[in-house]
Amino acid sequence: MSSSPPPPPLLLLFLFLTLGISGVHSSTTLSPSAAMQSLAQKRKPAMDAKLPFTAHFFPQQLDHFTFRPKAYHVFYQKYLINSTYWDQGPVHTAPIFVYTGNEGNIEWFAANTGFMLDIAPKFKALLVFIEHRFYGESMPFGNDSYESAEELGYLTSTQALADYAILIRSLKKNLSAEASPVVVFGGSYGGMLAAWFRLKYPHITIGALASSAPILQFDHIVPWSSFYDGVSQDFKDESINCFEVIKDSWDELMVVGAKKGGMLELTKTFRACKKLQSVYSVRDWLWTAFVYTAMIDYPTPANFLMPLPAYPVKEMCRIIDGFPAGEDILIKVFSAASLYYNYSNTNSCFDIENGSDPHGLHGWDWQACTEMVMPMTSSNESMFPPSTYDYKEFGDQCMTKYEVRPRPHWITTEYGGNKIELVLKRFGSNIIFSNGMRDPWSRGGVLKNISSSIIALVTPLGAHHLDFRAATKDDPKWLKEQRETEVKIIQGWIDQYYEDLRK
Amino acid sequence: MSSSPPPPPLLLLFLFLTLGISGVHSSTTLSPSAAMQSLAQKRKPAMDAKLPFTAHFFPQQLDHFTFRPKAYHVFYQKYLINSTYWDQGPVHTAPIFVYTGNEGNIEWFAANTGFMLDIAPKFKALLVFIEHRFYGESMPFGNDSYESAEELGYLTSTQALADYAILIRSLKKNLSAEASPVVVFGGSYGGMLAAWFRLKYPHITIGALASSAPILQFDHIVPWSSFYDGVSQDFKDESINCFEVIKDSWDELMVVGAKKGGMLELTKTFRACKKLQSVYSVRDWLWTAFVYTAMIDYPTPANFLMPLPAYPVKEMCRIIDGFPAGEDILIKVFSAASLYYNYSNTNSCFDIENGSDPHGLHGWDWQACTEMVMPMTSSNESMFPPSTYDYKEFGDQCMTKYEVRPRPHWITTEYGGNKIELVLKRFGSNIIFSNGMRDPWSRGGVLKNISSSIIALVTPLGAHHLDFRAATKDDPKWLKEQRETEVKIIQGWIDQYYEDLRK
Repeated sequence: MSSSPPPPPLLLLFLFLTLGISGVHSSTTLSPSAAMQSLAQKRKPAMDAKLPFTAHFFPQQLDHFTFRPKAYHVFYQKYLINSTYWDQGPVHTAPIFVYTGNEGNIEWFAANTGFMLDIAPKFKALLVFIEHRFYGESMPFGNDSYESAEELGYLTSTQALADYAILIRSLKKNLSAEASPVVVFGGSYGGMLAAWFRLKYPHITIGALASSAPILQFDHIVPWSSFYDGVSQDFKDESINCFEVIKDSWDELMVVGAKKGGMLELTKTFRACKKLQSVYSVRDWLWTAFVYTAMIDYPTPANFLMPLPAYPVKEMCRIIDGFPAGEDILIKVFSAASLYYNYSNTNSCFDIENGSDPHGLHGWDWQACTEMVMPMTSSNESMFPPSTYDYKEFGDQCMTKYEVRPRPHWITTEYGGNKIELVLKRFGSNIIFSNGMRDPWSRGGVLKNISSSIIALVTPLGAHHLDFRAATKDDPKWLKEQRETEVKIIQGWIDQYYEDLRK
Repeated sequence: MSSSPPPPPLLLLFLFLTLGISGVHSSTTLSPSAAMQSLAQKRKPAMDAKLPFTAHFFPQQLDHFTFRPKAYHVFYQKYLINSTYWDQGPVHTAPIFVYTGNEGNIEWFAANTGFMLDIAPKFKALLVFIEHRFYGESMPFGNDSYESAEELGYLTSTQALADYAILIRSLKKNLSAEASPVVVFGGSYGGMLAAWFRLKYPHITIGALASSAPILQFDHIVPWSSFYDGVSQDFKDESINCFEVIKDSWDELMVVGAKKGGMLELTKTFRACKKLQSVYSVRDWLWTAFVYTAMIDYPTPANFLMPLPAYPVKEMCRIIDGFPAGEDILIKVFSAASLYYNYSNTNSCFDIENGSDPHGLHGWDWQACTEMVMPMTSSNESMFPPSTYDYKEFGDQCMTKYEVRPRPHWITTEYGGNKIELVLKRFGSNIIFSNGMRDPWSRGGVLKNISSSIIALVTPLGAHHLDFRAATKDDPKWLKEQRETEVKIIQGWIDQYYEDLRK
């Protein structure tokens, strides 16, 4: 038993996973997109009904990098196809656009990457969305896939990339499309996979559009505080008062939580459906609202994670700033967070201590405990409580949770990242790294052009893979232009490919 | 029981492994260099004594691509260091030249890559030779490493490349040499590894010199008959008669072998130390002599596999052509093969049916049964008996031998190769593919420049990684020039690296 307070959410946290279990706080980890999915899953049936894709299953090999008997175990990997716009004929030459699925059901990424559907007609492209192993229905060991490290051990980015390579190659052969150029697309962790896929499998894809891919969020490439500094800056940009209120709220929360009758008071203030057990669940509930609102600070009303108005950070700060200065600080932050959780005004109370464990999250936690070690701290400049990060402590948590030890420097060994501009200036081609600067993940992204064909597209007002969302009539000019630039660059890759082929 | 004759050596064969066991012919496979090692092993002590290297062992992880508990098993990987010429000082910036070890004891490659020692002073380079897992002393499971597919399953090229990446990164850190550029060198299979390492780990090496690396000897990229056509052409180039005599000898061998008292006759003609049991052992003995002599058809006397005069193919044909036309054809080919086996005239008889099984060979046979599937046939144009290749049949042999099924298309999925000029014209940089056209493996190599920095250096009179051998006073001008070109190109990579670093 330790008498020190539970550690702050060291990396980040999925609200519904973290707290309230017998007072033990097991901090979990933020993936660029899995948390979103957990929230979106509740609305899944509505999305699936409309998806213009057919579902297929590919017999995939468990382990591409050993030849032990077990490596030959076959599982069925799900992928979605839309061939509405593809060129006709017995032999295809028109492009294939592949989404390299990330940590969740593939339907969710298909539903939220309207950009690919929007541009498919212009390119006469076949669309393929491939599900990442250990997510959705692509479970190598069925219901036992999450049983232990013995099964989960095969959940790695390198195996996933090899899955994609094998599936794409097989698909092209079976569709008589071996001359078709393949372009890969991915957002968030999927964007990291897309960029890495181009780097590792240039013979299978001619180029990658990696949207909001924080491939530099490893080791000490970017400062460990960059993510929370980014969230904080979003709020500070709207209003210093807003930033200060949030920054001050954490201490106030602890004070109220510690006093006699404090948990009951918090239960009322935060309209919890059940009496709150831990002050840290409230902390994390607020934390989550601010972090995700910053990530999806879109310029149009959107219904991605949660229904939200345009520029939701501005709206949150408008709420905070609208209160008289003397109002209870916890009322202010509760009201702001309610914008995130209850914009459509359907909740009369909030499930603040919900212990449910959607699959997508669980998978990402494993990945964070093995390869995807992205240290995050909050500095004094941030609006979050100060927090530190320690490899050893994190490793011990992973041992306790999964009996696995992280390999924190593996990603940069396998994929690089340190001095990326020096390396890729002289190697590789045809990658777009797109980032919206409102997205705190952008600080772990590639923000400057590296070469004439490894391009950074940065939008100051963009957010987390905003460019991948379907076009709407309200899209601002800069967003339309960004997408047009992407289309133009991709068209250039394809033209060059056909030209090279003809020679 | 089958009544058909045993299959010809489908890929190729290591003489000492293949035949004579109760009439069952289990054809084995040729690696570009392992066979050489088996022959060279007999002279190992003499080489080791002189090697200017210190030996070290690195704690290496068994499985880089899964996180199962077993993946964390640690073994000790051997590497050799020579720091005689490296720049002095607490922090190093001078280059590190790494040999990416192939299928054998690392000492053997260090002893036979004098080129790196020759050029180290000019570059003030640190030399590092890393042993390939499952060879030499780098045995992941000690004496049990070759026990079954459960252990051997970890013997793969991808794991080996990741070993190199991790070891190099650790070494640079420990030596305070993180700013030192790394150039990788490799010959034969080691050359394939060097080229693939540059393609997969450009953040760890600035360039690769891949000598005699048949990276296109997979799938149907080059004709399956190319290797034996190459051997045959070498002989044909010297003398049509020589070519015809060898071509006719196989039938004659079968006729004699089949007649009454034939095996005794062959035992005498081929001066076998013990009475021969199988005609196929003689076939493979001859086959091996012709193939390896073609590979190492060096322009100077050499003592690499076997002591041989300069241009040994020419010498073999001189022997054959020197006989009167009416002489027994088997006497002719025996005499020619004797040049290979007995140039130093130390053998009074030959161990034609030697069942010994050196480790290096065994390891390569496993690799050939899993990843390194290089189909080889002999066509009607070759001087070898016609032979075919069948994936299924080969796979069945591998199941019988190792309980493993080959993945014949994995190498091209993982590393590419098909239409390599289209792919690498637009991707990657800083690779030299050097090939000597006398070497039959050159037909599976990259023989044309792909881009301004992915260069093919072809020498019409060169042989199997001739450029990697130590310079001798008798080296012809074209060989000196080839090495000078290599040095100049590598110097260019290093200069550019330092220039980029300064910016």
